[in-house]
Amino acid sequence: MIIVLKPEATPQEVEHIVRKLESLGLRAHISRGVERTIIGAIGDETILRALPLETIPGVEKVLPVLKPYKLVSREFKPENSLVKAGNVVIGGNCITVMAGPCAVENQEMLMMTAEAVKRAGAHILRGGAFKPRTNPYSFQGLGEEGLKLLALAREKTGLPVVTEVRDTRQVDLVSHYADILQIGTRSMANFDLLREVGKSRKPVVLKRGMMSTIKEFLMSAEYIVSEGNENVILCERGIRTFEDATRNTLDLSAVPVVKQESHLPVIVDPCHATGKWRLVIPMARAAIAAGADGLLIEVHPFPEDALSDGDQSLLPSKFDRLMEEVRLIAQAVGRTL
Amino acid sequence: MIIVLKPEATPQEVEHIVRKLESLGLRAHISRGVERTIIGAIGDETILRALPLETIPGVEKVLPVLKPYKLVSREFKPENSLVKAGNVVIGGNCITVMAGPCAVENQEMLMMTAEAVKRAGAHILRGGAFKPRTNPYSFQGLGEEGLKLLALAREKTGLPVVTEVRDTRQVDLVSHYADILQIGTRSMANFDLLREVGKSRKPVVLKRGMMSTIKEFLMSAEYIVSEGNENVILCERGIRTFEDATRNTLDLSAVPVVKQESHLPVIVDPCHATGKWRLVIPMARAAIAAGADGLLIEVHPFPEDALSDGDQSLLPSKFDRLMEEVRLIAQAVGRTL
Amino acid sequence: MIIVLKPEATPQEVEHIVRKLESLGLRAHISRGVERTIIGAIGDETILRALPLETIPGVEKVLPVLKPYKLVSREFKPENSLVKAGNVVIGGNCITVMAGPCAVENQEMLMMTAEAVKRAGAHILRGGAFKPRTNPYSFQGLGEEGLKLLALAREKTGLPVVTEVRDTRQVDLVSHYADILQIGTRSMANFDLLREVGKSRKPVVLKRGMMSTIKEFLMSAEYIVSEGNENVILCERGIRTFEDATRNTLDLSAVPVVKQESHLPVIVDPCHATGKWRLVIPMARAAIAAGADGLLIEVHPFPEDALSDGDQSLLPSKFDRLMEEVRLIAQAVGRTL
Amino acid sequence: MIIVLKPEATPQEVEHIVRKLESLGLRAHISRGVERTIIGAIGDETILRALPLETIPGVEKVLPVLKPYKLVSREFKPENSLVKAGNVVIGGNCITVMAGPCAVENQEMLMMTAEAVKRAGAHILRGGAFKPRTNPYSFQGLGEEGLKLLALAREKTGLPVVTEVRDTRQVDLVSHYADILQIGTRSMANFDLLREVGKSRKPVVLKRGMMSTIKEFLMSAEYIVSEGNENVILCERGIRTFEDATRNTLDLSAVPVVKQESHLPVIVDPCHATGKWRLVIPMARAAIAAGADGLLIEVHPFPEDALSDGDQSLLPSKFDRLMEEVRLIAQAVGRTL
Repeated sequence: MIIVLKPEATPQEVEHIVRKLESLGLRAHISRGVERTIIGAIGDETILRALPLETIPGVEKVLPVLKPYKLVSREFKPENSLVKAGNVVIGGNCITVMAGPCAVENQEMLMMTAEAVKRAGAHILRGGAFKPRTNPYSFQGLGEEGLKLLALAREKTGLPVVTEVRDTRQVDLVSHYADILQIGTRSMANFDLLREVGKSRKPVVLKRGMMSTIKEFLMSAEYIVSEGNENVILCERGIRTFEDATRNTLDLSAVPVVKQESHLPVIVDPCHATGKWRLVIPMARAAIAAGADGLLIEVHPFPEDALSDGDQSLLPSKFDRLMEEVRLIAQAVGRTL
Repeated sequence: MIIVLKPEATPQEVEHIVRKLESLGLRAHISRGVERTIIGAIGDETILRALPLETIPGVEKVLPVLKPYKLVSREFKPENSLVKAGNVVIGGNCITVMAGPCAVENQEMLMMTAEAVKRAGAHILRGGAFKPRTNPYSFQGLGEEGLKLLALAREKTGLPVVTEVRDTRQVDLVSHYADILQIGTRSMANFDLLREVGKSRKPVVLKRGMMSTIKEFLMSAEYIVSEGNENVILCERGIRTFEDATRNTLDLSAVPVVKQESHLPVIVDPCHATGKWRLVIPMARAAIAAGADGLLIEVHPFPEDALSDGDQSLLPSKFDRLMEEVRLIAQAVGRTL
Repeated sequence: MIIVLKPEATPQEVEHIVRKLESLGLRAHISRGVERTIIGAIGDETILRALPLETIPGVEKVLPVLKPYKLVSREFKPENSLVKAGNVVIGGNCITVMAGPCAVENQEMLMMTAEAVKRAGAHILRGGAFKPRTNPYSFQGLGEEGLKLLALAREKTGLPVVTEVRDTRQVDLVSHYADILQIGTRSMANFDLLREVGKSRKPVVLKRGMMSTIKEFLMSAEYIVSEGNENVILCERGIRTFEDATRNTLDLSAVPVVKQESHLPVIVDPCHATGKWRLVIPMARAAIAAGADGLLIEVHPFPEDALSDGDQSLLPSKFDRLMEEVRLIAQAVGRTL
Repeated sequence: MIIVLKPEATPQEVEHIVRKLESLGLRAHISRGVERTIIGAIGDETILRALPLETIPGVEKVLPVLKPYKLVSREFKPENSLVKAGNVVIGGNCITVMAGPCAVENQEMLMMTAEAVKRAGAHILRGGAFKPRTNPYSFQGLGEEGLKLLALAREKTGLPVVTEVRDTRQVDLVSHYADILQIGTRSMANFDLLREVGKSRKPVVLKRGMMSTIKEFLMSAEYIVSEGNENVILCERGIRTFEDATRNTLDLSAVPVVKQESHLPVIVDPCHATGKWRLVIPMARAAIAAGADGLLIEVHPFPEDALSDGDQSLLPSKFDRLMEEVRLIAQAVGRTL
């Protein structure tokens, strides 16, 4: 931590800061420049993070030197982490595709979609049983009934299933049926929920908050890992910006940034990010070209009738094309699908 | 709902849309313009909101005519709502000030602060027992111990207390001790939590999500009211933007916008919005000048030692000055403090 | 400038950086912490700003200690600057109101508006002759004809006039007619134009770029002042965010931030920020309560027929009310109108 | 244009609107719904765009049906446009790479870079002679001297050159030396400059404003094309968001969106978008995978000494690798490099 002093800071104020640092077990290193004096705090920076150093008289600003996350950082673990769900490995050389309907609506539709995505080569079945909806009067998902249908679809197709858990009280229930727990974009900063899925040991797909920085995204992963669950898959799904041609702005630069900062696998959801099915295939290609380890794709046999997010769902025939095009990109970056 | 067709839409596609609307109990009104044909869907627009109309062949875009919220709208209830907590009324002619430390740290500090804010004229005591923290290793609040201290402070000062509830499992516990439940900015879209506080009947301070539009803010209030709890106080607390001179950007225009759209009271938190104590007093004045019904202010007797958000806390002496200056503004807009 | 090294930086790399700093006339101050070594560069920081220090092997990140602006900073000049235009002083105890139509449309309308705003107590007449329009097919302003009408209105009313200059080639022409030059939000980073108005010595209203940070805003003012023109009035007019209930988000916190950082006067344009006339009066009150030195207000006798930005223009009767309400706020903050 | 009326709109207000539309040569089509009456304005929508319809009594909101741009739209011209510069064609099946230093610093460096990028397979040489710099004290470019060096480099290598024009007064000068004019991100809304380059007939690379929507981006292209210059190449270069891990957020979804909306070629600048050279190669791959027609890349033989934007420049050896990796992606999407 570096403490920059105001030009008018008095010797008493400098003394006060030095003593404060020492009382916390840190060492102060003073450096007098031409226009400013700065104090370097040597020792465990985490002690200082919780303190409002900028309120101390004489302090102009405080510059952290280290990153706030640890267990999820590449500095802590240089090699890539692999996450296993059933017989699928995420984060290795092979690209992982998770596909299925936004919401589980009924058995027939789910089975039809599950079989279609399996046939096209998807590795994991997605589908929401508990849907977070902005509008209290919209369809909120089938709940446990939906989880049972997902389990049935897994039985029929052999595909592991990923589904969202929205509330701390649902973690046990959802863990009972699902192979991977999904934390949605609106829950990325629900720290109680992060702790609960951290205790569950099930793999977790953690979606980036639509208005969260990459640093906060990694801090949320740190919450889960710090409870002992290392099986975290990060998912970029678009951030909120001023642009309204798309539902959100897919921040694909986050893929190489996260890959540099962290050892965890990263996948991309181009459907929620764009909100428009016509943009899904090009952005799926781009995600893999940017270095993503996988994709999360919405597929629906009849998007026109979908009870949730039909605008961004692909027909099975379009999903087939997506898989073909993504396979070519995967090869171009030295990976397989 | 207005459906704008593509220039190349065929008569069959038009026919398909008309039949679809009719099957949903709506009436289609076709209007052929020079460059586009449009279809007005006459009837209950909420039926259409859940459907992905833009996926229907021939459709270019869909324009909603109505707002998605109902119970919280001024159209539904033209006069201002008043919310009562203890003997305090929020939303009337008198400005309400809620003040206290960010987090409850210990009894001595809380009592000292509670007495200071009471002396200065605050109406409600705030203080966090369950703190949502980005960093898993930071101080997370005293939990129930903090709630007990708040109850004790209420006993000593007579001030009703407001405190955050972060998780559905805490609603009963927090309701047992608090007079007003606070939903924090990171929980504004935690819809399960909104439903729970909607069932509790306690007044609720709903903070705007830092990434949420005013429309979504009102939809979250609609969640609470639709469960039967009409005692919702909306709180603008800054949104996330590219500007980094302040922690967030206080969106004061939201105050008159919400006042036009909704009958619910609106208060402003200038501390979290700016993140800098030097900006709190001017922005508190501005909030009241913009028409806010109250303020949420952090006060700490020793901000330098605060375990949470000390940078944005006022010393009691500064809070005294805030109350004096705000009182003058309240008079200038025909209100009292 | 503080240079934070990577944990794996070699002694050769440290040596290379030290020699580089010395070759630039700076002194290196090395401080070895527990997890990182940092180098403080002592001497003139501006030399380093232009260099990409982060590309030097071994460097993790670079933290500037000083602010990039100088002449406009309070550190350079602690007391408030006053800007004079005709017999009006901006930045003193008296609030300055600049009012008039968005665009000069014709003589009758301009005279009617000029007399109305004068009667209501405005100090300066605004009106656009060169209008920056997003749409190439929209009305672009009357050009020199508009400037002549403004000069005529000044003659009739005695009010100094402020009008936008959009292009370097127009600076002489506009300076010939206007008392104050306005740099629009889209021109804030037109550095050639800033230099030209810096040479002209006329007072300048510099509007904040809708996409610009406060730091960049002050850097643009520095461009003008560094050419010798100290008569700069800063104008907050809203920034672009995700919120779409208003045209832009008025960043009123910018007022106290700029007041702390700079000695220049600050005014606020609540019309362009909100884009809705119903929000103009409350935000005008809030601006003065936040500490602004003045307002820029659009007034139009028939907003329904306005050729530019009628949605955000006030009728003269509404402007009368604005002046009354703002006067009360001015008094509440110890100023006059 | 669709005009939604307030629930309380009177018959007189409806009548007033209908007459207003008729006086403008439009036809009004009234449709009475359950909760709102709406009026469709049939005829030329552009007439209405300039009018503040929302100020008319009884009007709640106005919804445009058509897009505001015309000449640049695919609706106007369905097939892709090709832009020629020297013997290079942009927008066809072959990917175009424009590469070179951010700023022209001196002859030796420019020649070294020009030869390196040519050897690696770049098609066009880039380099700035007039640099827009936020800081008035930073290096502003060599001006005409830089243009002469670019012309010399073209002579030596045969590569056409692209360079920025920053001010209307420089258009003739820059056109004299350059093959392609570049409009920088800060100039995208400098409408006078757009008109000037529209008159020049030279091909134009138009960079997206860092806080401009895609719609505004296309409107700026419309400015150029409406003056008669159809040779516009659109360039996505990142938008400003809250994320600070990268300099800007590269909005790659803009590539397929623009390709759907417009017939103009689209290229991507991953250097300014990310601001970090480590991110340039993955984002270059992603851009081509998303469907971009080309790339704009900064290359510098000694980034550590660059006078402008060295953090985001590639060494020639890294640029070689970029070309190889991008070639594989181009093949995967059925194109050549």
